[in-house]
Amino acid sequence: MAQPYLPVDEYDARLERARNAIAETDVDALCLFSATSIEWLTGFWHLQTERPVCLTVTDETVAVTVPRLELERAEVVDHVDEVYNYYDYPGGSGEYPVHSSQTPEATINDMLDDLGVESACADMDGAPGFWGYSGPSLSELAGVDVETVEWITEWRKTKSDAEIDLVMESGKWGNLAHRYLAEYAEPGKHELWVAKRASLDASMAMFDTLGDEYQSHLRGGFPASCSFLSGPNTALPHGLTENRRLEEGDVLVTGASSNVGGYKSELERTMFVGEPTDEQEHYFELMLEAQTIAIDESGPGVPCADVDQAVHDYFDEQGVLEYTQHHTGHNIGMEGHEREFIDRGSKEIMEPGHIYSIEPGIYIPDDAGYRHSDTIVITEDGIEMVTYYPRDLESNIITW
Amino acid sequence: MAQPYLPVDEYDARLERARNAIAETDVDALCLFSATSIEWLTGFWHLQTERPVCLTVTDETVAVTVPRLELERAEVVDHVDEVYNYYDYPGGSGEYPVHSSQTPEATINDMLDDLGVESACADMDGAPGFWGYSGPSLSELAGVDVETVEWITEWRKTKSDAEIDLVMESGKWGNLAHRYLAEYAEPGKHELWVAKRASLDASMAMFDTLGDEYQSHLRGGFPASCSFLSGPNTALPHGLTENRRLEEGDVLVTGASSNVGGYKSELERTMFVGEPTDEQEHYFELMLEAQTIAIDESGPGVPCADVDQAVHDYFDEQGVLEYTQHHTGHNIGMEGHEREFIDRGSKEIMEPGHIYSIEPGIYIPDDAGYRHSDTIVITEDGIEMVTYYPRDLESNIITW
Repeated sequence: MAQPYLPVDEYDARLERARNAIAETDVDALCLFSATSIEWLTGFWHLQTERPVCLTVTDETVAVTVPRLELERAEVVDHVDEVYNYYDYPGGSGEYPVHSSQTPEATINDMLDDLGVESACADMDGAPGFWGYSGPSLSELAGVDVETVEWITEWRKTKSDAEIDLVMESGKWGNLAHRYLAEYAEPGKHELWVAKRASLDASMAMFDTLGDEYQSHLRGGFPASCSFLSGPNTALPHGLTENRRLEEGDVLVTGASSNVGGYKSELERTMFVGEPTDEQEHYFELMLEAQTIAIDESGPGVPCADVDQAVHDYFDEQGVLEYTQHHTGHNIGMEGHEREFIDRGSKEIMEPGHIYSIEPGIYIPDDAGYRHSDTIVITEDGIEMVTYYPRDLESNIITW
Repeated sequence: MAQPYLPVDEYDARLERARNAIAETDVDALCLFSATSIEWLTGFWHLQTERPVCLTVTDETVAVTVPRLELERAEVVDHVDEVYNYYDYPGGSGEYPVHSSQTPEATINDMLDDLGVESACADMDGAPGFWGYSGPSLSELAGVDVETVEWITEWRKTKSDAEIDLVMESGKWGNLAHRYLAEYAEPGKHELWVAKRASLDASMAMFDTLGDEYQSHLRGGFPASCSFLSGPNTALPHGLTENRRLEEGDVLVTGASSNVGGYKSELERTMFVGEPTDEQEHYFELMLEAQTIAIDESGPGVPCADVDQAVHDYFDEQGVLEYTQHHTGHNIGMEGHEREFIDRGSKEIMEPGHIYSIEPGIYIPDDAGYRHSDTIVITEDGIEMVTYYPRDLESNIITW
């Protein structure tokens, strides 16, 4: 790959798309409050906190209102033309001999006034109530007519070639983290120790390989990471990470990923600590076949609902429907789950550039769960695998 | 401490408070969609995803609608009386011979019908647009009159004795993580390696000490963790974790915490890799004095605004106002930042049971930042420190 982050000109096309969408409505601007949407559109990324950030796109200008502590970071973003800042939230009281004395809301109002915005589409009608923020709607604070739209969430479904490159690169480092996990796991080891040692070693390899060019979109996390549930905790798909040492005979349901320029992949494996029992092998093979069916069914022009239906029909035929707890998969990219979902209720058709997790699972109550997850890209003539850790039984038996 | 999680009867008082608040309005119920609010009120905690969860409290009943994959976890919660479940999101299409064939929205509607709810207060008017969810407002989907309220965000500001115990316990393990950080840091070490080794060792000590009783409210994270910025990256308060090895002369701005029963504390220190320069020492002492002023000023009956004003006045007097970028602190507990904020624009009065971070900072552009953060509890007659890592210069010089 050329570089482990999006090329700057990627944002030209995104902004043009936003401006075309604005032109097709009769509003003056697009206003964004979600950190993910703002990052997608301009490359300016920040931690979503109680301090409101509002990015506004008009025909002429991209302006953003940020708290003082994001000022320098916003100013260096190529695709942001003007930066307004307030000191802090709630703010607006007392003398501010050096900083702006305005509240966040008044600063957003000024920005919209300066831009001549009287009507806007917005991802939400005002800053979200995150970490204790409370404030007026955008309509109330700026006297602007607001229509909420889901443009960016929709546009994010189809990835560009540059985005696909980052997800593919993410798959590599997730694979390394998972390989270390398989190496370090053995009876007596604590699950946290195994997962975090594997995450650390993979992350250090990633840093030492990608070098200074690597731009983490993290604060406090691992660039490459893995985790897993073990033993009876695997029987719930969203079980907690428990406080447990591995035992011979355990089933593991793992997860591994990495963050490359803000993009992620998803790799999960069902593994066995030592030789599986006949029953464990039976459920593993059922799960594996269901995943193979879903991967084979996927491709351009295929309804998401059909892929999920094929899995459902197979599980029904095998008499294990009662052990299923969720649909087949979801889109993935900047967030862990993204629209659209591989679900029988979905109206979506798979298209080139969509990236999905394929992860049908079965969960035997109070016993164990079985789920692999792989990430696939829909291409012009089929699919391409992002994740490539071996899926077969033999490769997923841990020995020591 | 008795146990590293909240006693079950803590939720009796919370539910009574909610029911009293409902009785003071003319609505039939309180509906909650936020995972944090639901956990606070009932002890049922789950990952917020695209799959809607709606908890409803009436005079008689606590009912919740969950996706299939949360069913078993919801059913065992003492303070949840009835659990409704749908298969998955978006759902609702095709045959479901084993599972509920309903959409999330139809299931929520049925639950409210069964409970006889025609009007409700709610934390938000429908499930949030998280991870690609899109759906109708609560009013639209259930034909219910909805008034949005911030009751739980407000109630969370004042912690009970049991909550304070958990935050105090969190402070201990954050301290251990920070101690390891100070031990492992030296020139040539990668910042990720130092922080994650310290996090892992502190987490393992936590598991081995608290034992099976420790209930992590995590999925994939560290029970006890630390991270830091180093060198010029410290000059931005919300800088990224960068890809950098430590050098002699670096300033570090650290952060450490731990999660005990879902509660957190906050510990941050400005440290030096080797002896600081005179200029570094000067800024360190200014920052330290500002923090001491804020701690001394805090107590029951004190306006939050006065504490922030005292810090502001000191920095103004010292001629470093231009180097400040944020207010003095925030409430903390279940989330990293919580309402209310120690800000000159705040109307809040400090009360016994409030827990605040105290973290005034100064940031010298392109050079380094200086910030300690300590967590304090407001008591009947003053404050109590949660965090206790030494604050003085000598203790924060790293040697090797």
